[in-house]
Amino acid sequence: MTGISQREGVTLEELKKKMADFARERDWDKFHSPRNLLLALVGEVGELSEIFQWKGEVPKGLPDWKEEEKDHLGEELSDVLLYLVRLSDICGVDLGKAALRKVELNAIKYPVGLCKGSSKKYTHITTTTTTDSEVQSNNGCSGNV
Amino acid sequence: MTGISQREGVTLEELKKKMADFARERDWDKFHSPRNLLLALVGEVGELSEIFQWKGEVPKGLPDWKEEEKDHLGEELSDVLLYLVRLSDICGVDLGKAALRKVELNAIKYPVGLCKGSSKKYTHITTTTTTDSEVQSNNGCSGNV
Amino acid sequence: MTGISQREGVTLEELKKKMADFARERDWDKFHSPRNLLLALVGEVGELSEIFQWKGEVPKGLPDWKEEEKDHLGEELSDVLLYLVRLSDICGVDLGKAALRKVELNAIKYPVGLCKGSSKKYTHITTTTTTDSEVQSNNGCSGNV
Amino acid sequence: MTGISQREGVTLEELKKKMADFARERDWDKFHSPRNLLLALVGEVGELSEIFQWKGEVPKGLPDWKEEEKDHLGEELSDVLLYLVRLSDICGVDLGKAALRKVELNAIKYPVGLCKGSSKKYTHITTTTTTDSEVQSNNGCSGNV
Repeated sequence: MTGISQREGVTLEELKKKMADFARERDWDKFHSPRNLLLALVGEVGELSEIFQWKGEVPKGLPDWKEEEKDHLGEELSDVLLYLVRLSDICGVDLGKAALRKVELNAIKYPVGLCKGSSKKYTHITTTTTTDSEVQSNNGCSGNV
Repeated sequence: MTGISQREGVTLEELKKKMADFARERDWDKFHSPRNLLLALVGEVGELSEIFQWKGEVPKGLPDWKEEEKDHLGEELSDVLLYLVRLSDICGVDLGKAALRKVELNAIKYPVGLCKGSSKKYTHITTTTTTDSEVQSNNGCSGNV
Repeated sequence: MTGISQREGVTLEELKKKMADFARERDWDKFHSPRNLLLALVGEVGELSEIFQWKGEVPKGLPDWKEEEKDHLGEELSDVLLYLVRLSDICGVDLGKAALRKVELNAIKYPVGLCKGSSKKYTHITTTTTTDSEVQSNNGCSGNV
Repeated sequence: MTGISQREGVTLEELKKKMADFARERDWDKFHSPRNLLLALVGEVGELSEIFQWKGEVPKGLPDWKEEEKDHLGEELSDVLLYLVRLSDICGVDLGKAALRKVELNAIKYPVGLCKGSSKKYTHITTTTTTDSEVQSNNGCSGNV
């Protein structure tokens, strides 16, 4: 009761514990090596992509999707999340802490004042050398706007 | 204050809000369509894979990794998570709720009593038709153990 | 000379040999295990996705893309291909032969007479069990049209 | 006869034509937009990953795999190839030409004399800025050996 009313939803820590319990109860820890879990994650991202693959562009909120399609989407999004949580745990990474830190790093990398209304992050392309035209991800929009 | 001490880590809801605020402040909502975010997620999964690609098998806890490698890993895991949270939000899916439901579905699909000590989930292969040897994911270990 | 004029382009066999020579000359065979190459492939698919991630839907032929963007796209498509060819070789799979066989299997799976003008393959969704609403890929449009 | 004896396998051009014919005959061109095909490719890479996900490291040549597993692997490798070939075609990229060019670019990027016996390409990590510890792919082993 109080527990539920005080929290605003599920923590990553809770999911981590559930996944660890789940594996332990089934004696599946032996399968959960970092690269096994990573490939399982890639598999789930593939299944997530399959949901969207023949649809062309879809609007936010997916207004025309059937309930069963949205349920299925929720399952595939969850599968990706659950393997991501498990992979982080097995690698000894505190995913929640890392995510909060990454949001802060992103805020430094893309300051509001300079980036607002700019699509530089998304469109800027730099050719680096004559032998390799790899697109570089633009490390910020400062100076470009 | 009390709120922070009572919680056991970061909620998906919090990350969702942070991502929504982040995009709104920078006027980036226009870029955040479902399929744009999905492809961005795939891009981050690629960067995550690159960390592991030439390492061969790595042990749990990554004991031999340098601090900077583990920090980098934390960032890539976070990037995947943040796009996953954002994609879910834009699709109108409550990711935390969906994940808890998926854990419950998995518990039904793989009952402890039947699955314990069995690797059926991971190794069972069924050839379905003569014209297509697609491997079927085994929907439970009941009856196989 | 005649050989070149008679061929209609690059064979998978040629690419396989080039990749094998490339690795041998650099003493890189030791890095080219199946799962290392698979993760490298996933990394390249991520880079390919990054090219398309913020663009929304793009028309066939990419009429508005700059030359450097198309060159970059060609490089990422090639990176995926080269790792795919190398992975197949290391796994002992004759990719060209397998691909021709798969085209034939697909022709049986999706017969012209029944599938023409039908989007069944792409849109048909089946809920399989009450505990799992996984979308099943439709194994053909026969009987459904 | 002569045709077969003169060629050493399947050309990318042949696969391109087969895929184009296949789509045209079924009136599926309308589904084959660049991003639809890209997501289909990601889906197939997911299926490929699923084959390897719980296996731990596997040796070259896959000596212990059953014939049906190898057939299935051949199908998934082919699915990735076929969508890659189709995506390239729809984007107006000559994949064979691009792949040959990429092999040449790689030869310049990783010269034999400097790279032989070096694993620099695979292990070198550079922290670029204080706000972002992204791993940079090492652009060659010159100067590092």
